[in-house]
Amino acid sequence: MSKSKVVVTRNLVADAKYLLDARVDRLDIVQWQSDMRSWLLENVAGAAGLLVMVSGTINEELLEAAGAQLKAVATFTAAQITDCLSDAVADLAVMLALMAQRRVGKSMVSPQIRGATMGFLDFGRIPQAVLKRLIAFGIKRAIYVTSQPGKPVREDYYDLCGSGTPVDVACDLDQMANESGLVIVGCALTPETKHVISTHFFSKMKTTAVIVNIARGPIIDTNALVEALNQHPIFGAGLDVIKDEPSVAADHPILKQPRCVVLPRIGSATFQAREQMAIQSVQNLLAGLTGEDMVNEWNM
Amino acid sequence: MSKSKVVVTRNLVADAKYLLDARVDRLDIVQWQSDMRSWLLENVAGAAGLLVMVSGTINEELLEAAGAQLKAVATFTAAQITDCLSDAVADLAVMLALMAQRRVGKSMVSPQIRGATMGFLDFGRIPQAVLKRLIAFGIKRAIYVTSQPGKPVREDYYDLCGSGTPVDVACDLDQMANESGLVIVGCALTPETKHVISTHFFSKMKTTAVIVNIARGPIIDTNALVEALNQHPIFGAGLDVIKDEPSVAADHPILKQPRCVVLPRIGSATFQAREQMAIQSVQNLLAGLTGEDMVNEWNM
Repeated sequence: MSKSKVVVTRNLVADAKYLLDARVDRLDIVQWQSDMRSWLLENVAGAAGLLVMVSGTINEELLEAAGAQLKAVATFTAAQITDCLSDAVADLAVMLALMAQRRVGKSMVSPQIRGATMGFLDFGRIPQAVLKRLIAFGIKRAIYVTSQPGKPVREDYYDLCGSGTPVDVACDLDQMANESGLVIVGCALTPETKHVISTHFFSKMKTTAVIVNIARGPIIDTNALVEALNQHPIFGAGLDVIKDEPSVAADHPILKQPRCVVLPRIGSATFQAREQMAIQSVQNLLAGLTGEDMVNEWNM
Repeated sequence: MSKSKVVVTRNLVADAKYLLDARVDRLDIVQWQSDMRSWLLENVAGAAGLLVMVSGTINEELLEAAGAQLKAVATFTAAQITDCLSDAVADLAVMLALMAQRRVGKSMVSPQIRGATMGFLDFGRIPQAVLKRLIAFGIKRAIYVTSQPGKPVREDYYDLCGSGTPVDVACDLDQMANESGLVIVGCALTPETKHVISTHFFSKMKTTAVIVNIARGPIIDTNALVEALNQHPIFGAGLDVIKDEPSVAADHPILKQPRCVVLPRIGSATFQAREQMAIQSVQNLLAGLTGEDMVNEWNM
């Protein structure tokens, strides 16, 4: 049996490479030697499998350069939410919440987590991982709004509803804004959630409250946030994502707001999360080559 | 019965002022109207009690200006460790740990808390409050060194030893440096602990480890830390305190080290902690006036 050629990114962590190398009897592994797209277009010819870091490089030109025998393309995608990725993003959310609370400026004193009600905009695995961490900080209660307001969440990943800290569905966003000392934005970006955190939402928030966005930039109306922070109706904000990132203008007012912490989308940037994603991508590639189901498979 | 005059700082939060006002039948309360020391020297004359923010203002000149009838002087001091203050400092320690881990620079990826062993230099109330918070982040194990190396800690404030996460006494600092992914410095400053975190200690640490100091600046040899970070034997550092603060020179190399987060001693700077300290100070003042024991009383 002839070997199948696979072309893989050069940025593959050791454990993921090991997984691939274990199939060396059946695979002819070609690892990128440069960042040049021309190299990739040349070397992908005849490949049965392709593993790339970013999905942006996959287009018609690339698929044609590969040829009809190409069976599987695997990418590193955040869609493959694992516990490991949840850890990395939830850790960052806690950091942003604490940093936003300590952005004291001239007031010199800050709110703290103990005794606060936490509000979650959607309550999937990552928001739940954030709550799990913050219980020991002494939060009083958690409330959440899902994509179906008023409806309880389907899965309780960490048995939080049995943790002793009250966890309730909020009636609506107004109630959540009104009662929360700390709001975590963790929902998907849809036409309904775009700019759902608006001037109206901020006007309902406590003056000692902070908001953290670990989801997608456009869920928060950035201009409304700048206004809210300038006029002091909320205490602070922590953003791992921002509308239009990574091309936010250097002079955008949000970057100059002293009570807003802005990070360049580093939520998943830990050794462990990247490693886990690399391993899953290799597993996905191998599954695709042998005709098994791939995670988040897109049939063309 | 004539009222006793008490002179109190103008920076008194509402709840502490309320406590004082409840004694208005017995107290003649004079609240500072300016930051001027001359005002204080003039108005303290004849006072039975004095409540000040900082202890630095209390000297012979002030005591003489007050007169022999002065019975009690109360100050806001961090020595009055309350759970509320522990919360504020422990929250900050977690923030610093997370920030130090994310100080990625060019490496682009960072270590994370899950799976790490945590090392504590002394294991009193605040370090224990830090551990309590980090258990839900997925730490593997905690080890600690106390002022009596090898001896277990006297008090387990939060029943951590029964939490399911292994908590062990380390044999010595070398073991702690060697095994920890995250070191929390939370000990008192004594001749024995000065510079106990040294070049030797850093040389034993993991390259992915971070160190956080929430105790006193001189416990860490700052020059050794700068060296360690410059040469990459450790990943990062988070300092709420630094040797010689608040007079650290603006061009001190530690302030320019990109993998070190330095904060200006804001551990206790939360509304709740400051409020609690103010309330305790008023309680202390009132106790002193009626001849009861004061917390941390210093008989002159």
